[in-house]
Amino acid sequence: MATTFQSPLNFAMIGGGSGAFIGSVHRTAAQLDGQARLVAGAFSSTPERSLQSGAELGLDPSRVYPTWRALIESERARSSPDRLDFVVIVTPNHAHFEPALALIEANFNVVVDKPMVLSSVQASTLAAAAARAGTVFAVTYNYTGYPMVRHARELVRTGELGDLRKVVATYHQGWLANLIEREGQKQAAWRTDPLLAGAGALGDIGSHAENLVSFVTGLEIESLAADVSSLVPGRRVDDDAGVLLRFAGGARGLISVSQVCIGEENNLTLRVYGTKGSLAWAQEHPNHLTIMREGQPAQTLTRGGPLTSAAAAGATRLPPGHPEGFFEAFANIYRGVIEQIRLRRAHGSTDPATEPAYPTLADGARGVRFIEACQRSAANTSAWTRLGN
Amino acid sequence: MATTFQSPLNFAMIGGGSGAFIGSVHRTAAQLDGQARLVAGAFSSTPERSLQSGAELGLDPSRVYPTWRALIESERARSSPDRLDFVVIVTPNHAHFEPALALIEANFNVVVDKPMVLSSVQASTLAAAAARAGTVFAVTYNYTGYPMVRHARELVRTGELGDLRKVVATYHQGWLANLIEREGQKQAAWRTDPLLAGAGALGDIGSHAENLVSFVTGLEIESLAADVSSLVPGRRVDDDAGVLLRFAGGARGLISVSQVCIGEENNLTLRVYGTKGSLAWAQEHPNHLTIMREGQPAQTLTRGGPLTSAAAAGATRLPPGHPEGFFEAFANIYRGVIEQIRLRRAHGSTDPATEPAYPTLADGARGVRFIEACQRSAANTSAWTRLGN
Amino acid sequence: MATTFQSPLNFAMIGGGSGAFIGSVHRTAAQLDGQARLVAGAFSSTPERSLQSGAELGLDPSRVYPTWRALIESERARSSPDRLDFVVIVTPNHAHFEPALALIEANFNVVVDKPMVLSSVQASTLAAAAARAGTVFAVTYNYTGYPMVRHARELVRTGELGDLRKVVATYHQGWLANLIEREGQKQAAWRTDPLLAGAGALGDIGSHAENLVSFVTGLEIESLAADVSSLVPGRRVDDDAGVLLRFAGGARGLISVSQVCIGEENNLTLRVYGTKGSLAWAQEHPNHLTIMREGQPAQTLTRGGPLTSAAAAGATRLPPGHPEGFFEAFANIYRGVIEQIRLRRAHGSTDPATEPAYPTLADGARGVRFIEACQRSAANTSAWTRLGN
Amino acid sequence: MATTFQSPLNFAMIGGGSGAFIGSVHRTAAQLDGQARLVAGAFSSTPERSLQSGAELGLDPSRVYPTWRALIESERARSSPDRLDFVVIVTPNHAHFEPALALIEANFNVVVDKPMVLSSVQASTLAAAAARAGTVFAVTYNYTGYPMVRHARELVRTGELGDLRKVVATYHQGWLANLIEREGQKQAAWRTDPLLAGAGALGDIGSHAENLVSFVTGLEIESLAADVSSLVPGRRVDDDAGVLLRFAGGARGLISVSQVCIGEENNLTLRVYGTKGSLAWAQEHPNHLTIMREGQPAQTLTRGGPLTSAAAAGATRLPPGHPEGFFEAFANIYRGVIEQIRLRRAHGSTDPATEPAYPTLADGARGVRFIEACQRSAANTSAWTRLGN
Repeated sequence: MATTFQSPLNFAMIGGGSGAFIGSVHRTAAQLDGQARLVAGAFSSTPERSLQSGAELGLDPSRVYPTWRALIESERARSSPDRLDFVVIVTPNHAHFEPALALIEANFNVVVDKPMVLSSVQASTLAAAAARAGTVFAVTYNYTGYPMVRHARELVRTGELGDLRKVVATYHQGWLANLIEREGQKQAAWRTDPLLAGAGALGDIGSHAENLVSFVTGLEIESLAADVSSLVPGRRVDDDAGVLLRFAGGARGLISVSQVCIGEENNLTLRVYGTKGSLAWAQEHPNHLTIMREGQPAQTLTRGGPLTSAAAAGATRLPPGHPEGFFEAFANIYRGVIEQIRLRRAHGSTDPATEPAYPTLADGARGVRFIEACQRSAANTSAWTRLGN
Repeated sequence: MATTFQSPLNFAMIGGGSGAFIGSVHRTAAQLDGQARLVAGAFSSTPERSLQSGAELGLDPSRVYPTWRALIESERARSSPDRLDFVVIVTPNHAHFEPALALIEANFNVVVDKPMVLSSVQASTLAAAAARAGTVFAVTYNYTGYPMVRHARELVRTGELGDLRKVVATYHQGWLANLIEREGQKQAAWRTDPLLAGAGALGDIGSHAENLVSFVTGLEIESLAADVSSLVPGRRVDDDAGVLLRFAGGARGLISVSQVCIGEENNLTLRVYGTKGSLAWAQEHPNHLTIMREGQPAQTLTRGGPLTSAAAAGATRLPPGHPEGFFEAFANIYRGVIEQIRLRRAHGSTDPATEPAYPTLADGARGVRFIEACQRSAANTSAWTRLGN
Repeated sequence: MATTFQSPLNFAMIGGGSGAFIGSVHRTAAQLDGQARLVAGAFSSTPERSLQSGAELGLDPSRVYPTWRALIESERARSSPDRLDFVVIVTPNHAHFEPALALIEANFNVVVDKPMVLSSVQASTLAAAAARAGTVFAVTYNYTGYPMVRHARELVRTGELGDLRKVVATYHQGWLANLIEREGQKQAAWRTDPLLAGAGALGDIGSHAENLVSFVTGLEIESLAADVSSLVPGRRVDDDAGVLLRFAGGARGLISVSQVCIGEENNLTLRVYGTKGSLAWAQEHPNHLTIMREGQPAQTLTRGGPLTSAAAAGATRLPPGHPEGFFEAFANIYRGVIEQIRLRRAHGSTDPATEPAYPTLADGARGVRFIEACQRSAANTSAWTRLGN
Repeated sequence: MATTFQSPLNFAMIGGGSGAFIGSVHRTAAQLDGQARLVAGAFSSTPERSLQSGAELGLDPSRVYPTWRALIESERARSSPDRLDFVVIVTPNHAHFEPALALIEANFNVVVDKPMVLSSVQASTLAAAAARAGTVFAVTYNYTGYPMVRHARELVRTGELGDLRKVVATYHQGWLANLIEREGQKQAAWRTDPLLAGAGALGDIGSHAENLVSFVTGLEIESLAADVSSLVPGRRVDDDAGVLLRFAGGARGLISVSQVCIGEENNLTLRVYGTKGSLAWAQEHPNHLTIMREGQPAQTLTRGGPLTSAAAAGATRLPPGHPEGFFEAFANIYRGVIEQIRLRRAHGSTDPATEPAYPTLADGARGVRFIEACQRSAANTSAWTRLGN
């Protein structure tokens, strides 16, 4: 089964200058399979920092820009084979919307970090623009890139768990247990600034939890009741939330998110219970998935091991027992984007039979509505609040 | 350090006839250390079954009674060394209150299974009667008997975790995933009958979760918001609940309980997060306790191992690495009751410096208020509801 | 299914006075189900200590003896219902043989701690005597009392793992990492005295590992090559051994035992690999058993859970998820002994169809040969050494 | 702390054509950080397959060669910036020696898969040649690339475990439980061919285990006693081995390796016990390291978490809780090679103060001696056999 060489796609980054944790993750992930290469960027809101980052990354200086507007202005004029195939936005949350809209309108495909934008109004604007432009648009809810998460979704889809009854997701971190935003920690500084981040834990990790729940279960959150807190005195955004969920069809759920849990690193877990079986997954041990069926011992499925689905296999690079991790999962999101762009290039538009193997603008929009609904419920004595759509 | 032999205490059981799971557990636990012996009983609401159970247990037939009323009537006349030192009530929930009250009034010490009674009114009546009578009164929230749970409480008490911020408890079982109460499963039958059980999952396991949270954290639940469901069609009691908690002092919490989670056996877990550290414990692996402190790797404490407290050591029978389990924890509740009865016998009344090493009537009453508050909140669109006291 | 009450059996102890760890374990285990009661004893080689221990245990002073010889002398004269049904020997290893032989000859049933005796010559003497007397004779290799260990054996027996190929057992402890025998630690003192213990780690835990391997696999160790060491300077017995195994039929194995492994508590593990599947079990998590079959995900069986065998169920007292531990496993050995004694009493001799549910004198003898073979191999440059039989 | 862009190094591959598992791993790992790029290759012993693989990889056809000899012949003529900085050999074991020697002599730096060569004679020849040429020469014992393995070595080096006493390593796989080499499985075919592989499990995974032991402990294996088997009937190489180890200084050890363990995936584990503490690590959960110290609870260190060393931090790309895996560890070997090559380029020769952060030719040679010693011991009734040096 000979494969044919395909030239790597070209991409640019907005944000993600040197020192930015997530920018470097995106670069490694996007380029992991050798199917994309970074060729341009506007890496910082400070022009000199942008230029310096570009130099450190070895880019052609003529494609390193002081601002994202300059990037779009200049790059839109290029054509194949130099043309940018997609642009990645990894700025702080408040600075997603404007470049995303401009990129769509300039006919670039877009990858944007989560949460996609700060409001559902912004989300709708993007959605309309992207629909008009036919943009490939991905939001990096990277945890859905894990093979065992994809397998979990297959189990639900194929009915192996029966009708779902209850879903529990927790996402606990500890890095904001103290007021480190006052101590010059850069990551913490913008993520706890209401103007830059929009929301705190809800936006940073709560929307990941929502996305994981929605991706795996396929259930629609009909309404939620949220208790949202700032548990660290002096914190300007939420750092903790408990959320009760009611799904269309009657299933129930809970989400607990917190960033003040000393000792927790990136402890995202999911449990899904159905009429025929259950599953459990934990991000810190991503190569395993526990499945429980009535009258049967629990099974521990392994990535690449027996009984895993095509969906999981397609996101797997190594045999079982050879651990894959965060980068590989993140790279699977990019793999999906790259495949989609190539499909469109080959077929003029998306093959309608092919489901995008990455979180879409619709996923991003739902994430924003989830955050908003939590905030509204919390402001209204935790009253049940519809998520809308 | 020679110890002096002390005659075992005498006890009777109300309920717990042959075939009843929990009755047998109580007997093994109460007698594990050889410090108590079953001498009498009214084991069933069906007189013949009671007599037969007594025979199977090898009791003196003259102390096996057709009804609990007969038991009290006859046994109250006995005096030392035949006198009953305590009576254990392990009937279905609805049949706790009457015998408990009668036992108090007849001057017997009482051990009763949880939930203690069906209403806070009943709880108050018992409390008043027990206060008048000076009863030793225990409610078998047995999970607080685990040494590592006791150590967890010590960590909180001694300030090792700092001020608590967030508490998450889950108690998931799967045995009621189907409508087995229709298939003659005796345990399921009464536990899902609203008249006999009062509540479903909330009473059976939810109050355990509340008790574990309260015991370890020492926090007072100020109010809660609950979503209570019957997820199995046809079920007559709740079998699932999600509960948001607000504690006095500002900490937040969540409790998830469910009995429809296929594959879950008795999965009770607790996580407590404070300003200085965190802890995690799981009932199915009770000999371990995870402690996380800022800037330190997680520690796994083991029962009997390094750095455990006197409170834990006093509840430990074996060296570390030699697993103890459910029976031993349950026996620790009885050990506390027996010590307390002996203390009172020796000193006339409780030594005020000695804290009862068992869940008291006050714990039982709080458990009932928790159940009621969940039910009230659920009936009121999950509105925040005060627990009261 | 009404059960009929059976009077508890009477037993005595030789050794196990107050303060002796293992004596107390035997008492709790033997009496856990209420089917046996301690009525007599010679608890120490120091007569006064024996009498004091008997008093602390609340025994009738007339049945507490200054020496085991006095015990046998006096107790052999008693008849039912006072007659001793069995006698438990929990003295240091060197003091097993004499009382065991005397008990057999006095027509008492015997339970003796492991290693059974100090030499295979002693073992043969006991075997001959017990065969003549028809003694019920058990050696407390207690780990075979765990339900999941019994289930593991069933899996092998019923061919679910196919033909066995490889077996790995490790038994690592850390309590002898320092020369605590010089610091007055009583347990350590006799266990590291060559005269009292015979062997060190090999006898104390190595023979447990051998027994576990033999019990579960049913394989016969044909020969072994052992490297036996005293890793703590000044230690007078072995505290570490590595052993290569060759089984009849061609399977291979390894056993690693050590008592100098800081941080290890009682870490006994077993892995068995066959042509159709594999299993893994760990004593510190005894309620679980991992099974791996070709082309299938690993299964985690739980005690009392789905697919466990009658052999496991018969050794189980609690539902799955309610942890059982060391005491309950130990009690299962006693349960087997008690059943066997009752069977013999009922039927005159053992029902030939009934396999003893406890480790027998033959198991004890094989354990002694294992220790001897390791010692011989080690003394002979780790040459392959036959175990014999 | 601005970093300066450095052009990626150029490398070529010998072997590793399309479809070869390990070739693709090497490519991903070498290029993960964007510090190296594949520019040439002789990918197969079949010329057409080599050319096709080069095309699939998008290489310049003029640098894709039919044979490794052709590659060397042509590439040695190139100079900077086109010059190859290193060449990776990922052919079957028997085809390592010749190209390695030729590359050294042609003044190329070399990365070769393990086991390095088929005999210690070959190893000595390479060592002499590399010493003459000043070659940077790495052997991809990739498991030493894991950050927590590097931290484990630091713990030993800094004396935190005291003097080492016992070491246990197991490496169990199941993929060769059946005779799949007869069914056209390509990986299995050459790895079980004595002529191509030299040894079976000993070479494929046994030398990994030896390397892990040697790397972490720094101990020298003085002699060993090995039982080496082919447990699958018809297998032409060993597929199982048990090895007793004696280290210089008196420590003892065991290694168990097997490829017939159904259900085991890539289960490499290491336990090291010293006079002051112990450690445990498992390749399938590589982000964690357990440390046990006397009188202290076990600690679970996490990659990137508290108390990890500079050695670990330098091999880490992501924050704790964001799992890294096999690729990242493998990439750390390449990172070490790349740094070394750059250092030499900058300084003319290696900075004597800088230890190579990759397994060297000496490690490869020791691995070969380990395999040979196991084979000699096994052929000599498992007699103690010196490893030599």
